[in-house]
Amino acid sequence: MYAPTTVTASTPSPDSAFDLEALLAPAVGILGPPTSLSPLPYDLNAGVPDRPSLPWRELAEAARVALEANAGEALTYGGVAGYEPLRAWIAQRQSAETGLTVTPAQITLTSGSAQAIDTIAATFLGPGDQVVTGAPTYPGAIRAFKARAASILDVPQDDDGLRTDALEALLRAERAAGRRVKLVYVVATYDNPSGATLTLERRRHLAALSREYGTLIVEDDAYAGIDLDGPPPTSLYEITGGHGILRVGTFSKTIASGLRVGWVVSEPRIVQRLNYMRFDNGASPFIHHTVLAYLEAGTYDAHVARLCALYRERRDASAAALLEHCEPYMTFKRPAGGFFHWLHLRPGLEAQTVFEAAQRHGVAVTPGPSYYPNGGGNDRIRLVYSALPPDDLRAGIQRLGAALEEVAGTVRAR
Amino acid sequence: MYAPTTVTASTPSPDSAFDLEALLAPAVGILGPPTSLSPLPYDLNAGVPDRPSLPWRELAEAARVALEANAGEALTYGGVAGYEPLRAWIAQRQSAETGLTVTPAQITLTSGSAQAIDTIAATFLGPGDQVVTGAPTYPGAIRAFKARAASILDVPQDDDGLRTDALEALLRAERAAGRRVKLVYVVATYDNPSGATLTLERRRHLAALSREYGTLIVEDDAYAGIDLDGPPPTSLYEITGGHGILRVGTFSKTIASGLRVGWVVSEPRIVQRLNYMRFDNGASPFIHHTVLAYLEAGTYDAHVARLCALYRERRDASAAALLEHCEPYMTFKRPAGGFFHWLHLRPGLEAQTVFEAAQRHGVAVTPGPSYYPNGGGNDRIRLVYSALPPDDLRAGIQRLGAALEEVAGTVRAR
Repeated sequence: MYAPTTVTASTPSPDSAFDLEALLAPAVGILGPPTSLSPLPYDLNAGVPDRPSLPWRELAEAARVALEANAGEALTYGGVAGYEPLRAWIAQRQSAETGLTVTPAQITLTSGSAQAIDTIAATFLGPGDQVVTGAPTYPGAIRAFKARAASILDVPQDDDGLRTDALEALLRAERAAGRRVKLVYVVATYDNPSGATLTLERRRHLAALSREYGTLIVEDDAYAGIDLDGPPPTSLYEITGGHGILRVGTFSKTIASGLRVGWVVSEPRIVQRLNYMRFDNGASPFIHHTVLAYLEAGTYDAHVARLCALYRERRDASAAALLEHCEPYMTFKRPAGGFFHWLHLRPGLEAQTVFEAAQRHGVAVTPGPSYYPNGGGNDRIRLVYSALPPDDLRAGIQRLGAALEEVAGTVRAR
Repeated sequence: MYAPTTVTASTPSPDSAFDLEALLAPAVGILGPPTSLSPLPYDLNAGVPDRPSLPWRELAEAARVALEANAGEALTYGGVAGYEPLRAWIAQRQSAETGLTVTPAQITLTSGSAQAIDTIAATFLGPGDQVVTGAPTYPGAIRAFKARAASILDVPQDDDGLRTDALEALLRAERAAGRRVKLVYVVATYDNPSGATLTLERRRHLAALSREYGTLIVEDDAYAGIDLDGPPPTSLYEITGGHGILRVGTFSKTIASGLRVGWVVSEPRIVQRLNYMRFDNGASPFIHHTVLAYLEAGTYDAHVARLCALYRERRDASAAALLEHCEPYMTFKRPAGGFFHWLHLRPGLEAQTVFEAAQRHGVAVTPGPSYYPNGGGNDRIRLVYSALPPDDLRAGIQRLGAALEEVAGTVRAR
């Protein structure tokens, strides 16, 4: 039996007299905080899947099946690339989707797509190296890139995703200045936070730019499968023929984020380098064996289809509620998939002020600036529709509307 | 159903024309390869626990219990520090062992102790920063420190572990030269690879040096609990009062390496910084809930006691076989715990030559140089006794003896 110890304000801190600040690596001082869950009644901040839909009975059974089949392998170090049959399953899916040959040697399994991005950063980015992201982009990528002391160049997004015309101008200017851009990081499909999906035309343009400038593409496909309006455009991976690209995937949105199973698909020589630049002795083979047993049980595709129906209902309910309760104060474009609405605030309304007012009304949302590596986004709010049922979404958005009205009144009064 | 794709030499490589070498981070070129399993009949190379002893039935049951109790929490992001009740369990153990107050806020859960070391490196080591290790030391630490472009200063070990007199001279010289040593990394108890245990006197000396020079201690306690001759000396954590120290632990050796559950115990302000400098969105809460359910079932301590009896038998059988079959060619000191014999080769015998001869005889061992950050160790061989039963150990060591005889014969003949 264990007796949990509770941390209270009165616990004497054992912090020592060591000069910690002098000992820290330089990157520690420049990072924003990692994301966390909100204790507010309506959490429209955390981009998490629906909890009641989690296939826990199937996973418990899969864990039992996997351990009975090969406990020795499931419970011993599995190598840095991860369990080969699970890589083979993913490779086959990727092959079927893209029409390209994808082998297990082209895949490394990571602890979620988050560790995939960190490992890519470790492999390619040293101090001062240049990486491009959208503005906005995923804050986890911003943190991972900044931690390597890389220089993040941002390219604006619009409703169709990353503006590749602006990217082209940037790459041309950097080349003219004798500087190389190593990576372009993009969530091409159902972006976090913008919900935007890069058009086929822009995908082709991006692929051509990658070839022309020798810049690798990091295609973060974390929301793959959460298709609410039919399939997305052809993947960047397919368009590039799998050349000069690292495609990041995960089971976090389609099975469970608590598994921490993600991956990278790339050229074999790139995957080899990624395997060199991770220092965790590989992710958990117990989880890998469990996930494969779950996939082999054959319920995965039906499960994802059910999730899409559920998220479609939530997207539509929240979109309707936004129009009803918040419209005078913001606009948005309904996303074709994923978890997020990306609200454009009316001129005069500031994200931080709206965020604080929403908090007072019991609603957690995410202010835009978190998503901009070099500043900006104070006219934006991200709102998660995946985690709560329609009634809660409507109630939360009604409160957000009241918060917006309150802030707008104050702005008018000034 | 999945159909695993097989990688063969004839698979056309999709490697592109991208200039990969120009894109890689500088650290990629300077690291040794990660460790891997050997396909040879007698693998005395991989430092892994005994497979048949893995408590897989208990873990399968624990997974079921954990998911039934709280699937929503077990299968959703659990925060970077990891599941609080599991941290509380570990905190209570650490408190009971050390007599110090350890709270859950002083613990962060990592993906094995390997990720703990990597996160410590990320938090403290930038390019050119100085870290001390033993010579020899754990290769995973060497790789993680070099990947941050840190400068590794090594201090010789003898049968009693790190030579703290040499450490003192080093710290004094560095201070005199105006340079700071940020960390001293040490496996004080049952070192990997040397099997040595730092004496109490040296532990006190090391703690005093840490205070005097403002250098943090990283106490890697990966082999804690594998006590084959009674309890080890007081931990560095206890001796320092928990000040200026990061203690790394893991369930890899006492439950299963395939779980990938490790941790760091430190001052709250240091743990906060570690949580900032990891980019994996936390380790798997599914695993954390499962491990806690296993611990709460109450069989853990008896399991560790059984493991110790098993490893004691293997240590003794392998020590006897070394004396019988290899003695003219090497010496060693029987370790008081852990997984390893550390063989000192007779003058004239070289580790690399012995390693290759052993391979021809079907035995995998690890040549000494892998364990030296700045060269050395060509008169050393590491031999794992944890993974194989006594009969296999005896057979493997007999073959190693034949390999040594062969090499010694060649040396004489030259």
